[in-house]
Amino acid sequence: MAELITIDRPDDPRLYDYTDLTDVELRRRREPAEGLFIAEGEKVIRRALQAGYPMRSMLLSAKWLDTMRDVIDASPAPVYVIDPELAARVTGYHVHRGALASMARKPLPEAGRLLAGARRVAVMESVNDHTNIGAIFRSAAALGMDAVLLSPDCADPLYRRSVKVSMGAVFAVPYARLTDWPRDLNAVREAGFQLLALTPGAEAVAMDEAAPHRLPKVALMLGAEGDGLSARALRAADTRVRIPMALGVDSLNVGAAAAVAFYAVATGRPES
Amino acid sequence: MAELITIDRPDDPRLYDYTDLTDVELRRRREPAEGLFIAEGEKVIRRALQAGYPMRSMLLSAKWLDTMRDVIDASPAPVYVIDPELAARVTGYHVHRGALASMARKPLPEAGRLLAGARRVAVMESVNDHTNIGAIFRSAAALGMDAVLLSPDCADPLYRRSVKVSMGAVFAVPYARLTDWPRDLNAVREAGFQLLALTPGAEAVAMDEAAPHRLPKVALMLGAEGDGLSARALRAADTRVRIPMALGVDSLNVGAAAAVAFYAVATGRPES
Ligand SMILES: C[S@@+](CC[C@H](N)C(=O)[O-])C[C@H]1O[C@@H](n2cnc3c(N)ncnc32)[C@H](O)[C@@H]1O
Ligand SMILES: C[S@@+](CC[C@H](N)C(=O)[O-])C[C@H]1O[C@@H](n2cnc3c(N)ncnc32)[C@H](O)[C@@H]1O
Repeated sequence: MAELITIDRPDDPRLYDYTDLTDVELRRRREPAEGLFIAEGEKVIRRALQAGYPMRSMLLSAKWLDTMRDVIDASPAPVYVIDPELAARVTGYHVHRGALASMARKPLPEAGRLLAGARRVAVMESVNDHTNIGAIFRSAAALGMDAVLLSPDCADPLYRRSVKVSMGAVFAVPYARLTDWPRDLNAVREAGFQLLALTPGAEAVAMDEAAPHRLPKVALMLGAEGDGLSARALRAADTRVRIPMALGVDSLNVGAAAAVAFYAVATGRPES
Repeated sequence: MAELITIDRPDDPRLYDYTDLTDVELRRRREPAEGLFIAEGEKVIRRALQAGYPMRSMLLSAKWLDTMRDVIDASPAPVYVIDPELAARVTGYHVHRGALASMARKPLPEAGRLLAGARRVAVMESVNDHTNIGAIFRSAAALGMDAVLLSPDCADPLYRRSVKVSMGAVFAVPYARLTDWPRDLNAVREAGFQLLALTPGAEAVAMDEAAPHRLPKVALMLGAEGDGLSARALRAADTRVRIPMALGVDSLNVGAAAAVAFYAVATGRPES
């Protein structure tokens, strides 16, 4: 059972995991380096625990003690009880969801291990927006993707906003980081996957024609908002696939494109 | 040609259209009531003008005068030239995109007029999140939807964040507000549309089976994040349609569900 510790100074060093949560640039560096991430709100904290992430500590206001009682009883991590005003001074914002937990990261699996058991994977290149990453994980979980692979410069799925937008799907869909980009795509191909590059480019074949649901093992590659997939990533793909669009439209948002592609690969199509 | 007016006081009454832009609740009320909306950044301003929205005024820092010269020359609206620090004090944030314009709204078309020329429409119920509304318009434009109909309590497509997330698609896809909800859905049916309610509910038929691309006129109804479509809206529909999901997943984000549905209704399917 956890120790309850009432804290009344914003500079108490035990609160260090929770300082300056609104400073995205700072937290983006600090959290992976310090091996932690922040789970916000009862639901997310419970999901993170269920997914096997160890809790380092929890921070909550007194009125949340009852709701979180079972979590507190089941964990050895210290629980800091703190006035909401004080919490706002530490974190930089008013914590509407009442409870925060600092969770320990787990080592990421090797890409090869994920590929061994998978049939449908998503591969993200340079998607460095936390909202897009979260949205893509939520769709990946809902539409039955087996795993997500991230290029080295993709945003952190465990960043607070990614976790929230994903509705906890970042805990459910296994993911790995590729370290040598785009060379590691060869390992994906060698594991038996066809690499489909999703691109609005006119040279690509239409999704219908590509019929990805017929392929035994598919890796769907998606790019970032501004630039899309790099020329090198496009060259590394087996096929370029296009979601047909209305005339004059540049592109879909990557989250929307991902949802369509995950759906297309999941669902057999009836005759038209 | 517009008049250039240098302004050096944050309380200059001519800046009233631009005050407190970060106060979402305030702006959400003020902008429709005052018949204006804010276009942010060169690209969005140009698109709004092209779409025929009259400009009330523009606010920019001196270094943007050259870039916007043709817009300034072509418009009779006053142009307020203002120091970036001062602009931040007026608007409440640092305007990275350099230029803001206050645009006049146009009267919205009647739903009946939009339905007359349309084959595929999206119908939103209570989608009151600006990001989701913007994302749905962007997908609607890309995937060839003819129009969007909004229940009375949907968020404003012309709110700054909706416009931005939509990449200007809110100017391209015609939309109307239904006033009597859900009764006005009858008018949609009477215009020859089949009403498909998108819902994760187990009682719904799978998208594949519904095969919406075979229907001559389709209205795709979508609900909001928490509650989904109301019982009354579901009853008003002809068919409930489900995007099949992995076991144990609650739902897709409405933007992702919209993208999948728009794709399914747009694209004939090959045999599986
Ligand atoms: C906003 S788009 C990038 C646009 C960029 N200008 C380009 O040409 O790729 C982000 C990602 O979404 C996917 N995407 C967007 N629209 C698509 C479409 N119509 N077909 C296939 N993929 C698309 C691609 O993976 C793309 O890299
Ligand atoms: C986040 S969901 C709402 C979830 C809500 N709990 C419900 O049961 O409807 C928002 C909207 O997206 C659409 N949606 C989400 N997942 C869907 C699915 N698997 N099939 C069809 N529509 C879905 C529906 O229109 C829904 O109202």
